[in-house]
Amino acid sequence: MTSILPSDLDTDQRVRADDRGHVFHSWSAQALIDPLPVAGGEGATFWDYAGNSYLDFSSQLVNLNLGHQHPDLVRAIQEQAGRLATIQPSMANDVRGDLARRISEVAPDGMSKVFFTNGGADANENAVRMARLVTGRRKVLSAYRSYHGNTTTAISLTGDPRRWANEPGDGSVAHFFGPYPYRSAFHASSDEEEAERALAHLEQTIILEGASTIAAIILETVVGTNGVLIPPPGYLAGVRELCDRYGIIYIADEVMVGFGRIGEWFAFQAYDVAPDLITFAKGVNSGYVPLGGVVISDRIAAHFDTVAFPGGLTYSGHPLACAAGVATFEVFERDGILERVRDLGSRVVEPRLREMAARHPSVGDVRGRGLFWAIELVRDRETREPLVPFNAGGKDAAPMGEVAAACKSGGVWPFTHFNRLHVAPPLVISEDDLTRGLDVIDRALSAADAYAH
Amino acid sequence: MTSILPSDLDTDQRVRADDRGHVFHSWSAQALIDPLPVAGGEGATFWDYAGNSYLDFSSQLVNLNLGHQHPDLVRAIQEQAGRLATIQPSMANDVRGDLARRISEVAPDGMSKVFFTNGGADANENAVRMARLVTGRRKVLSAYRSYHGNTTTAISLTGDPRRWANEPGDGSVAHFFGPYPYRSAFHASSDEEEAERALAHLEQTIILEGASTIAAIILETVVGTNGVLIPPPGYLAGVRELCDRYGIIYIADEVMVGFGRIGEWFAFQAYDVAPDLITFAKGVNSGYVPLGGVVISDRIAAHFDTVAFPGGLTYSGHPLACAAGVATFEVFERDGILERVRDLGSRVVEPRLREMAARHPSVGDVRGRGLFWAIELVRDRETREPLVPFNAGGKDAAPMGEVAAACKSGGVWPFTHFNRLHVAPPLVISEDDLTRGLDVIDRALSAADAYAH
Ligand SMILES: Cc1ncc(COP(=O)(O)O)c(C=O)c1O
Ligand SMILES: Cc1ncc(COP(=O)(O)O)c(C=O)c1O
Repeated sequence: MTSILPSDLDTDQRVRADDRGHVFHSWSAQALIDPLPVAGGEGATFWDYAGNSYLDFSSQLVNLNLGHQHPDLVRAIQEQAGRLATIQPSMANDVRGDLARRISEVAPDGMSKVFFTNGGADANENAVRMARLVTGRRKVLSAYRSYHGNTTTAISLTGDPRRWANEPGDGSVAHFFGPYPYRSAFHASSDEEEAERALAHLEQTIILEGASTIAAIILETVVGTNGVLIPPPGYLAGVRELCDRYGIIYIADEVMVGFGRIGEWFAFQAYDVAPDLITFAKGVNSGYVPLGGVVISDRIAAHFDTVAFPGGLTYSGHPLACAAGVATFEVFERDGILERVRDLGSRVVEPRLREMAARHPSVGDVRGRGLFWAIELVRDRETREPLVPFNAGGKDAAPMGEVAAACKSGGVWPFTHFNRLHVAPPLVISEDDLTRGLDVIDRALSAADAYAH
Repeated sequence: MTSILPSDLDTDQRVRADDRGHVFHSWSAQALIDPLPVAGGEGATFWDYAGNSYLDFSSQLVNLNLGHQHPDLVRAIQEQAGRLATIQPSMANDVRGDLARRISEVAPDGMSKVFFTNGGADANENAVRMARLVTGRRKVLSAYRSYHGNTTTAISLTGDPRRWANEPGDGSVAHFFGPYPYRSAFHASSDEEEAERALAHLEQTIILEGASTIAAIILETVVGTNGVLIPPPGYLAGVRELCDRYGIIYIADEVMVGFGRIGEWFAFQAYDVAPDLITFAKGVNSGYVPLGGVVISDRIAAHFDTVAFPGGLTYSGHPLACAAGVATFEVFERDGILERVRDLGSRVVEPRLREMAARHPSVGDVRGRGLFWAIELVRDRETREPLVPFNAGGKDAAPMGEVAAACKSGGVWPFTHFNRLHVAPPLVISEDDLTRGLDVIDRALSAADAYAH
């Protein structure tokens, strides 16, 4: 951390006391955590009450695409709060309609309608609901190594350990293996072969699960938390083709990668495919106000023209959240955010990570696009033995803990997951800060190198 | 409606066009709705672009407890937006901790921790998750005539027609009959008998479903959308007792009735019971920013001291939402909102509704508490034949449509459901406006009287 700010340890103590006394935290054993009180933030930086500041290389939960306290988003929220903080979903509302129109304008042709939710989980729940009702089928296929949210169907779709303690859940979900060239489930030796074999595997799964029983396939376009897994060339187009062949709805989960993370409005636009349903959240308004949603193809929307859609929620299309979304569009367009992300990704991040990969024995793989990268850490580059085991906790996870601690003491707040360090800073980060953060990560990797041979 | 405001029909047209073109609405057949564009609101009133204003007798979706554009809530949001709009759930945050502490202070003793969610559905999902993990049992009992949200487990818990098109869902839910003295499922002839027989029925259900399989019973303390069903004396205490006897977690769904609707922080406080888990949303911050949550008994929280809680969401404990919650507590305390609700309920609403019931042949029953009342409309007071059938749509629902239209043309925006008109204005409504709204409803009931004999 960088100690530059005045400290306010009284407030720090008070915030800690309220937190430890009264706040029950996500995904945690409550007595084993020590949450950091955050005092403020600006752009790519946030700081605590002890005077330490951090470069936010995880964009919080990879939602803070426009950084902390972006003045345009803050102003939009303040103005909307003063105008009309909330109105129920059954009314028409100016910012709600404005945001829906803007989203449909950047979505593929023939996707004109948007159903708003509060976040990513309920976006996925409602997308699955639509797919089931339109097809009259129940089953949904989703990938291992995925995260889709914490409500019953969303956590059942999830293909990572967060599902385990929640089983049984939605019984109509089956999991398949997606492409992951570095650790191929298909013994492939090139990206092309990986795509081809992953598609053959998916088709086999469809056939064995029964095409006529499958409502939808849901896929993170670029798998996020579970590894920044970039789809190899042809994979997503092949998924689209399989969906068409078997009458299956293709749901693209763009919650983490939509709205600029890889330099596109929607990540699938980099791969020239169009899904039937798009789920989004996070980047749509950088999470300044809870918001998610589903972009709906006209064919699916038409099904509900005369048949009631049996889903809804009190805060669907919340004006305050939508106002922050409209401001997000304005900033993206005015400041050329998508172009910026592509430029920084290919000119600054990629070459630097490749260079680090060549130098650090602990780096097994680097992969990514735009401002979304993973550094996969191993004990042995030949065997690819991960630095820490899958889903490691406690002592087993210590080597990753050391890497994270080294990042923090260098002033970078990292995103780590299993044996990976992700690079996912706000899209507005300055080139200087980006380079400075990468320098810190570079040095922090020596902690991992010590375990590599 | 009351035409007092300047009209702005250009904006009206633009808002309608965006809405019809791009917004997919909850619970609706999209081509059969005509959402009203709302231009603004203040206190108990909102208005459209045509210059019509309405007294909001539904508090939007019974969430707007402090009314439209309450200056303290608006200011709290604006200040928090300028200070720190968002921070991830794993950090400690001043307003998040402040709100959690305040909630635990008004909750029963021994309920110190709060898990925050985005709304009511995910509050219930997470409460059920906790109950299942703590008990090691799966099944949840919930009541017919209930609503608990739209995600998979929440909609399965729901005991109204919104569940039907979503079945099958969470297979570990079983429904029982709750008390409803006016239409007793138990052939009871007094409130006392209804409570007693409803408890006997619940115990039979527990025994036949297998007590050892039942994790939780979830109950709206006062059933909201499905009828403002007030628990008869002794019922909730009996539920508490059954839960204790059989090792079952008692979840009180206070999403609609918590935070002042009936003149208590939590509605169960009027009935001298304490649940193990409380779910809340809506009134906690009047829905100015999406927020919900679960208040957790210390015994349940302790289970997750060293075992990770396997649930979470990106916006858990959102600072903007929590800031509006803290302001809500300040307003409630400074302005004596709970006392005000009890006073207006018993001094203004109750006598007036009882008097209307005596005069209008279409009124079968009136019931409620605080600022939460139902007028149940019938064709025949003897047979209690409802004015429109259960779950009526289209032509069958026309008589209720006429009552609603009469309210609207009198300047009152009503909450109607099946054969009922609910009275649920913002808790800050002036006594004059309250009386004026009741006058309008009184007149509107002649539309129903025309069908009654
Ligand atoms: C790909 C993906 N889908 C869905 C979700 C769930 O979103 P939320 O936490 O808003 O429910 C997440 C959250 O991280 C995500 O990364
Ligand atoms: C009693 C009750 N529980 C849960 C919910 C669901 O809340 P939300 O719409 O915020 O998901 C509602 C919403 O009306 C409700 O009235």
